[in-house]
Amino acid sequence: MNGTVPDMMHAAYIDAVGPADAIRYGELPVPPTGPTDVLVRVRAVAADPVDTFVRSGAYATPMPLPFVVGRDLVGEVAAAGPGAAGFAPGQPVWCNSLGHAGRQGSFAEYATVAADRLYPVPAGIAADQLVAAAHPAASAWLALFRHGRLRAGETVYVGGGAGNVGGAAVALAARAGARVVATARTEDAAAVRRLGAAEVLDHRSPDLGEQVRRAAPRGYDVHLDTSGHGVLADAVDLLAHGGRLVAMVGLGREAAELPLGRLYTRDASIVGFAISNASVADLADAARGVVGVLRDTPWRPRIAGRLPLSRAAEAHRALESGEVRGRLVLTPAAGDGR
Amino acid sequence: MNGTVPDMMHAAYIDAVGPADAIRYGELPVPPTGPTDVLVRVRAVAADPVDTFVRSGAYATPMPLPFVVGRDLVGEVAAAGPGAAGFAPGQPVWCNSLGHAGRQGSFAEYATVAADRLYPVPAGIAADQLVAAAHPAASAWLALFRHGRLRAGETVYVGGGAGNVGGAAVALAARAGARVVATARTEDAAAVRRLGAAEVLDHRSPDLGEQVRRAAPRGYDVHLDTSGHGVLADAVDLLAHGGRLVAMVGLGREAAELPLGRLYTRDASIVGFAISNASVADLADAARGVVGVLRDTPWRPRIAGRLPLSRAAEAHRALESGEVRGRLVLTPAAGDGR
Repeated sequence: MNGTVPDMMHAAYIDAVGPADAIRYGELPVPPTGPTDVLVRVRAVAADPVDTFVRSGAYATPMPLPFVVGRDLVGEVAAAGPGAAGFAPGQPVWCNSLGHAGRQGSFAEYATVAADRLYPVPAGIAADQLVAAAHPAASAWLALFRHGRLRAGETVYVGGGAGNVGGAAVALAARAGARVVATARTEDAAAVRRLGAAEVLDHRSPDLGEQVRRAAPRGYDVHLDTSGHGVLADAVDLLAHGGRLVAMVGLGREAAELPLGRLYTRDASIVGFAISNASVADLADAARGVVGVLRDTPWRPRIAGRLPLSRAAEAHRALESGEVRGRLVLTPAAGDGR
Repeated sequence: MNGTVPDMMHAAYIDAVGPADAIRYGELPVPPTGPTDVLVRVRAVAADPVDTFVRSGAYATPMPLPFVVGRDLVGEVAAAGPGAAGFAPGQPVWCNSLGHAGRQGSFAEYATVAADRLYPVPAGIAADQLVAAAHPAASAWLALFRHGRLRAGETVYVGGGAGNVGGAAVALAARAGARVVATARTEDAAAVRRLGAAEVLDHRSPDLGEQVRRAAPRGYDVHLDTSGHGVLADAVDLLAHGGRLVAMVGLGREAAELPLGRLYTRDASIVGFAISNASVADLADAARGVVGVLRDTPWRPRIAGRLPLSRAAEAHRALESGEVRGRLVLTPAAGDGR
């Protein structure tokens, strides 16, 4: 569909679900595109923890084999189908919903993206920041606004305000006119305050629960724990009348104790979601939030490291070690696919 | 405000929260009415379990003393304030939100009702049916539609389909075009099926869980257990993608085990509510549902007994004994207040 597009490309892919070492780096055919698809020349990708769940099989999802791993990309349009309105070759674009539900992934020199999952990169937004922000900031946006229904003037609790999801949540909520109470390590408190948090509490303080309560005497309208350390029953007790506790991760994979009586007598709810389930429309709304938080707030994703795409297996191993604090950004080798 | 209204009335009231025997029956002044209020001549009231929680103090709510107990009434307009548009003396009316949040109750010959909490009684609706339906059918409506967001074509589980709330839920959900799977005792199954349930399962069956699952292989969009016997973790497992478990009562007053991972990975939520918290707008929507279920479906509230208003304390004792299956309808003595 475009004379400058080769037949083959380098890609990080698996032939079957398995450990990080199952990721191979080699040549695959450049993927076909349908009439409403865009072929994207990939400039950078980010490795998500969720990528490791797809690769290992822990998150069961339809997967064509060989399967290119990875969810997020920034790049530029190599070729656009006749029904991919609004996209033209050379245009900078990004996506954060490849690599699951039957869609091939982003860890390649080229990727086919359905036009309704592809977003333009506005001028002034750095590509590596955007690809690193794509997953955590979209998750934070969906948690706060789609599932938490946060409105201006409400009070939101963000557990883990210095993390990538938590920091984006603090900045997005403050930008939306909400009052934010966050937890963070002492050394991160000033940075979280700069994102717009009204109060930042030391998550290791022995009387944290009492401090969180005092910071919002009428309770929290939205409760979002990105840290995974929270206790569900305590979180329910902190909810305001009509409050929404958004469950997206953490809070224990095992069953937690839920005081149902305390939930329903205050018209409160627990709203679970996984970004993998998000509709195309919700993802597009979230994409505007991702761009907005980078454009309008001081929040930037923490990038823990940069690697060539050929070292995708190493990136997965690093994520699985639990020692990476931030995003890993990978790039195709210079000259590859260009 | 109206020459036919006396100065004093009989009422069932308390001077302080306490046991059922704290309810006195005697004379109180007919209550004052403000410009947007309606003075209602009460024809019948129903005793709700929630009335006993207010009376005992278990449900803490602002309460002027002496405090007339009771939440629901049917009657007729005795006098309407100048701002109570649409109400005229003699008009049959009903209400289901007195007796809490600082409002005096309904167990009296006269009650003051804010016009936005008062609804006309349509022709053809029997007063005793309406007053007995007011609380359970409004609760069922709010559970299904306001909090459960049930839509036509969805599948709903109603635990306890032969109870007053459960039966109203079955009939309302079927009327709205949902597919209903209910539980009931074997002897009640035919009646619940007549209300519109597609399947009625014996709640004592040893493999009930498996039957419930088989009855909706893709899961339940809305799960409403009115029986109080359900297990939360099992209920979460039965939810469809995006399913809503409505928690309004039962399911154990103590903490229940919640498998958070199973909740959020399917975008499911647990939505708690108490009718006491409902807004005036939501109550008015629910009131249309109460009238609709009586007008359009075979469901009728189970009336367990009828008593004169002077025996209100006995009604509360009976409810608290747990032996009453259905509503208790009380009426002012003939001639009183007329």
